[in-house]
Amino acid sequence: MTKVITTGIIGLGRIGKLHAANIQNSIEGMQVKTAVDVVITEEAAMLMKKLGIENVGTDADRIFNDPEIDAVIICSSTDTHTDFIVRAAKAGKHIFCEKPIGSDVASIEAALREVRKAGVALQLGFVRRFDHNHKAVREAVHAGKIGKPEIVKITSRDPAAPPEAYVRTSGGLFFDMMIHDFDMACYLAGSQVTEVFTYGKVLVDDMFGKLGDVDTAIVSLVFENGAIGVIDNSRRAPYGYDQRVEVHGALGCVQDTNDVGSTCLLSTADGVAAEKPLWFFLERYNAAFIAELQAFTQAVSDGKDVAVSGEDGLAAIKIAMAAKKSLDEKRPVSISEIK
Amino acid sequence: MTKVITTGIIGLGRIGKLHAANIQNSIEGMQVKTAVDVVITEEAAMLMKKLGIENVGTDADRIFNDPEIDAVIICSSTDTHTDFIVRAAKAGKHIFCEKPIGSDVASIEAALREVRKAGVALQLGFVRRFDHNHKAVREAVHAGKIGKPEIVKITSRDPAAPPEAYVRTSGGLFFDMMIHDFDMACYLAGSQVTEVFTYGKVLVDDMFGKLGDVDTAIVSLVFENGAIGVIDNSRRAPYGYDQRVEVHGALGCVQDTNDVGSTCLLSTADGVAAEKPLWFFLERYNAAFIAELQAFTQAVSDGKDVAVSGEDGLAAIKIAMAAKKSLDEKRPVSISEIK
Amino acid sequence: MTKVITTGIIGLGRIGKLHAANIQNSIEGMQVKTAVDVVITEEAAMLMKKLGIENVGTDADRIFNDPEIDAVIICSSTDTHTDFIVRAAKAGKHIFCEKPIGSDVASIEAALREVRKAGVALQLGFVRRFDHNHKAVREAVHAGKIGKPEIVKITSRDPAAPPEAYVRTSGGLFFDMMIHDFDMACYLAGSQVTEVFTYGKVLVDDMFGKLGDVDTAIVSLVFENGAIGVIDNSRRAPYGYDQRVEVHGALGCVQDTNDVGSTCLLSTADGVAAEKPLWFFLERYNAAFIAELQAFTQAVSDGKDVAVSGEDGLAAIKIAMAAKKSLDEKRPVSISEIK
Amino acid sequence: MTKVITTGIIGLGRIGKLHAANIQNSIEGMQVKTAVDVVITEEAAMLMKKLGIENVGTDADRIFNDPEIDAVIICSSTDTHTDFIVRAAKAGKHIFCEKPIGSDVASIEAALREVRKAGVALQLGFVRRFDHNHKAVREAVHAGKIGKPEIVKITSRDPAAPPEAYVRTSGGLFFDMMIHDFDMACYLAGSQVTEVFTYGKVLVDDMFGKLGDVDTAIVSLVFENGAIGVIDNSRRAPYGYDQRVEVHGALGCVQDTNDVGSTCLLSTADGVAAEKPLWFFLERYNAAFIAELQAFTQAVSDGKDVAVSGEDGLAAIKIAMAAKKSLDEKRPVSISEIK
Repeated sequence: MTKVITTGIIGLGRIGKLHAANIQNSIEGMQVKTAVDVVITEEAAMLMKKLGIENVGTDADRIFNDPEIDAVIICSSTDTHTDFIVRAAKAGKHIFCEKPIGSDVASIEAALREVRKAGVALQLGFVRRFDHNHKAVREAVHAGKIGKPEIVKITSRDPAAPPEAYVRTSGGLFFDMMIHDFDMACYLAGSQVTEVFTYGKVLVDDMFGKLGDVDTAIVSLVFENGAIGVIDNSRRAPYGYDQRVEVHGALGCVQDTNDVGSTCLLSTADGVAAEKPLWFFLERYNAAFIAELQAFTQAVSDGKDVAVSGEDGLAAIKIAMAAKKSLDEKRPVSISEIK
Repeated sequence: MTKVITTGIIGLGRIGKLHAANIQNSIEGMQVKTAVDVVITEEAAMLMKKLGIENVGTDADRIFNDPEIDAVIICSSTDTHTDFIVRAAKAGKHIFCEKPIGSDVASIEAALREVRKAGVALQLGFVRRFDHNHKAVREAVHAGKIGKPEIVKITSRDPAAPPEAYVRTSGGLFFDMMIHDFDMACYLAGSQVTEVFTYGKVLVDDMFGKLGDVDTAIVSLVFENGAIGVIDNSRRAPYGYDQRVEVHGALGCVQDTNDVGSTCLLSTADGVAAEKPLWFFLERYNAAFIAELQAFTQAVSDGKDVAVSGEDGLAAIKIAMAAKKSLDEKRPVSISEIK
Repeated sequence: MTKVITTGIIGLGRIGKLHAANIQNSIEGMQVKTAVDVVITEEAAMLMKKLGIENVGTDADRIFNDPEIDAVIICSSTDTHTDFIVRAAKAGKHIFCEKPIGSDVASIEAALREVRKAGVALQLGFVRRFDHNHKAVREAVHAGKIGKPEIVKITSRDPAAPPEAYVRTSGGLFFDMMIHDFDMACYLAGSQVTEVFTYGKVLVDDMFGKLGDVDTAIVSLVFENGAIGVIDNSRRAPYGYDQRVEVHGALGCVQDTNDVGSTCLLSTADGVAAEKPLWFFLERYNAAFIAELQAFTQAVSDGKDVAVSGEDGLAAIKIAMAAKKSLDEKRPVSISEIK
Repeated sequence: MTKVITTGIIGLGRIGKLHAANIQNSIEGMQVKTAVDVVITEEAAMLMKKLGIENVGTDADRIFNDPEIDAVIICSSTDTHTDFIVRAAKAGKHIFCEKPIGSDVASIEAALREVRKAGVALQLGFVRRFDHNHKAVREAVHAGKIGKPEIVKITSRDPAAPPEAYVRTSGGLFFDMMIHDFDMACYLAGSQVTEVFTYGKVLVDDMFGKLGDVDTAIVSLVFENGAIGVIDNSRRAPYGYDQRVEVHGALGCVQDTNDVGSTCLLSTADGVAAEKPLWFFLERYNAAFIAELQAFTQAVSDGKDVAVSGEDGLAAIKIAMAAKKSLDEKRPVSISEIK
């Protein structure tokens, strides 16, 4: 009989609450014992109670010092990630950390050294790798069905722009949004990105411009294996979350399309009407959020490699930094320039 | 705060186990206290234990005599349905009963009288009404988007034939398989069926013929509201569960297609390859099985009408009987002939 | 170098004009020398002139007595078909005849005897056999890709009802519209129909009822090879010409969908909008009308069997008669009853 | 009655022969009187004869000096285009010229000055603007259905690489292939391109590298109206000609997909198989080749503006030059740098 993995969650924002609920309701072999945040809102307290999580507080040491806790789920703000990773590693706890892994290369590398030293598992929260559609595309590429990959294309558009408060601390489009696509690009190509070039614009809301960010961007990519690629992002897609990937290779092309609420098709004199894509990530990646924690549970239980490593997290951050630098300096930027 | 509805399950076959797991894992506001079957297999016992259902036995009176139990989930063999409905009604318990509701009109009508007398809720397990696709089609029709319905078409094919033992007691294709489609036809048309004509064949497996059944059938339908319709069934679809509906009306046509495992599309010199439909009802109607119990929970909690009534169950049985009679007598059969 | 086949056209209604234009503009190896009709409208005269057809008149003998004319294209009203077939055969001319081949079995059989005696080619105008989509379905069935056919389904709906004048002489839905589907059913199944059962209704326009016709019908079919099938027809589909076929067999299912004006897809907050099916047969079967005459040209040039024989025309008429009889007598009707 | 426009064709390669056949067979109101090329192959001579074009020779003055000829169709090699445009303009003939319009900016601008001076019509052969799918996308954008355009994406991949001889004189990928996409990008965005950045690779065939060309490229674009865009090209798509466009805007997204040979769908245990895209431009843009000449005929007859101007041709050439310069110099290149 498999031992149930006991976890503590750090950070009870939108994603922390989601993981808490998924672990308690849907992940066999894992449970949440403790949840902490800098402030515990009444709403968070009620949810934790409903989920049967009794230890709730503001001190993360309740997790790090608890010998019953096997793993930490880090869902706090990005600037705290590497610190918590280091503390968790030193406490000998396995780690699931939300993306992005951190905000500067040096501290990320230091944290990864601690992880390696402690010999604990560290899985990054690149949830899209666990989406049924993207996964099927990756598997087709991996199985050689399209031959050597040559062109990778990713369309990724949010239904609506986030609030200003979020953008102020998120690091901006390349760090809070396209970071997923950078990881997806590497995942699909089966290769690392070596250089990028960015065009970015403020077309959706001037707020982004005032904060030094863009809301619409096209980033071209060069991969180590010779392939090239492109990602486009927009902060606004009134028809819903637009998440499509495509890989073209020597033998063919594999792609996916959006999931929809139903396959219902209405034909009238006005035309043929189909349903819109699912509205946003909670709907589209609902099953993937569960699957990534199942994979983490499995990896910890079996002592096997995690599906998304800390190094993957670092790679994505470096690409994001290069993309931002390319935008700022109006020139292609090599990943090797990022220190 | 809403009271949690306490249930007892009768019958721990495939569908009973499915409902037990769904109630325990996914239905807020409902729990299973007791589960009974004529024989409790070791596998069923282990599953119940894992689901936290402690009272497991062979005597249904453990359910009917338990004042803590609010509702009964009937998943036993068809021939026992009406008897359990009557006992549940007399015990003042609400009832969720798997399809078909029974095997002869008189006993069904008697059972429905008891249900009405007791004033308990009775919901039939026509799970497909809760499927996201079929529901969207129904809602488009109901909203008047295609005008007055004129033609109803249902394609319904199982991936593979059931074992002989199942067919021996199921009542055959019209009672164990097309019964769903008869209900769906009425649900989509928003009208009752008044007459049917059947062509049926043994094309999949001679076993069906030996048992006096067919494995492939086309049943034409006439509805009270003037529409006509057709259902085709096959016991074998090597590409997976084929479940499509379509309604054509004065202003247009609304239809759905199958759900698939992923939207992944592979284009090579060999052609363009897409994924097959989901394999069978557990995959396709997974969410619908949860939704029907949520609806039952809601109906019991709110004291409102159930989504699928005992009368709907009786109507479907009568159509099935007429369809079988049409096959046997090679002529159109009116539902009014069925007593 | 291949000899150009010289033809005469009888009947300059909509379809006669279409064939004339196609032969003159698009059929290499065939030309129209003469065109006749009971009355030559000014519009028909101008079109013939524009097409370079100089001999235009009201006397069909101008065609039958002209030794330069190799083949006759019969596009006159149905009641004249068999007479013109007989005259053409006796004159030793090859024959392309629009559907239906005639209106009573005896005269059709007599005409076919004359054709056989004369040794001329006779091709029926079942144009849908030459449609790229239906043809691909047929070829997949024929190549054994779905194994033995078990269920044949045909959806066939006109965008709008024809004028009363047309219905008065067309023979009604089974003879002017579903006749195509009866032929398509045999073509797809690779087998003859042996029995039918019909449900028909007047739902679109009371005019049809006054003329003793129906405007909405579902006809179930039994095939000689054991398969069963169903055709549904409606005289009104506000979204355009709805022409879909499907064959289910032991190894799988093959189907087609409608052709559309463009693949353009518009996604907005209101939903996802696609184009409607092509409006009617002139748009949908445009290329097929050319292909059927190319096939006829080829058959005549090479002395090979035609793609659609007079016997196919007779078979379709018999099914139509049986379908009408089934509607009238409210019972399944065997094709063998039709004399 | 409209006067028939008499034309002379210069250049009887693949595209010249195609236009000759289309004019003779499908373009009402236009005819070919004379066809010239530097060498007349026997095959070209036979085709001209079959098409009823009697004047065939090697001296272009047979066209320019013929007062009966109203318009010239220039299909010769790119390096001769501007010279022929100038000669045609001076002779007062209207001009249809294949893309690209020329190979250096100065001579193109000089030629356009002559055209303006002569007051003749000049239409460029950007045939894809006349494709039913791309046109529907453009019309949706133009009608404001997606609001202000923000992202333009074009996928354009040839089924197989051209022969080395072709590449030696074509100017390479940006001039013989992506030139279409540059024009399409402006057409869809309703705006001019102001800057580009190119990643290009030799992945398909080393031959391209040896000739100083690439065979796979991603070019990012900035438009005058603030939108950004991206084009990807590959010289090899084993599944057929891949031609898809997409425009994302403030209110939604509009896109198209490839045309296919048939809508036939085969579902078996192996999966669901659909048809591949049409093989290459002759199949996919067949109707568009006719439509562009109909539009030219119309423009000349009515004295209205042509659908694709010489300025459009010049704009596309400048973008191609900038894209090549970007590849060579590994930096974004402004169109204003191209003289």
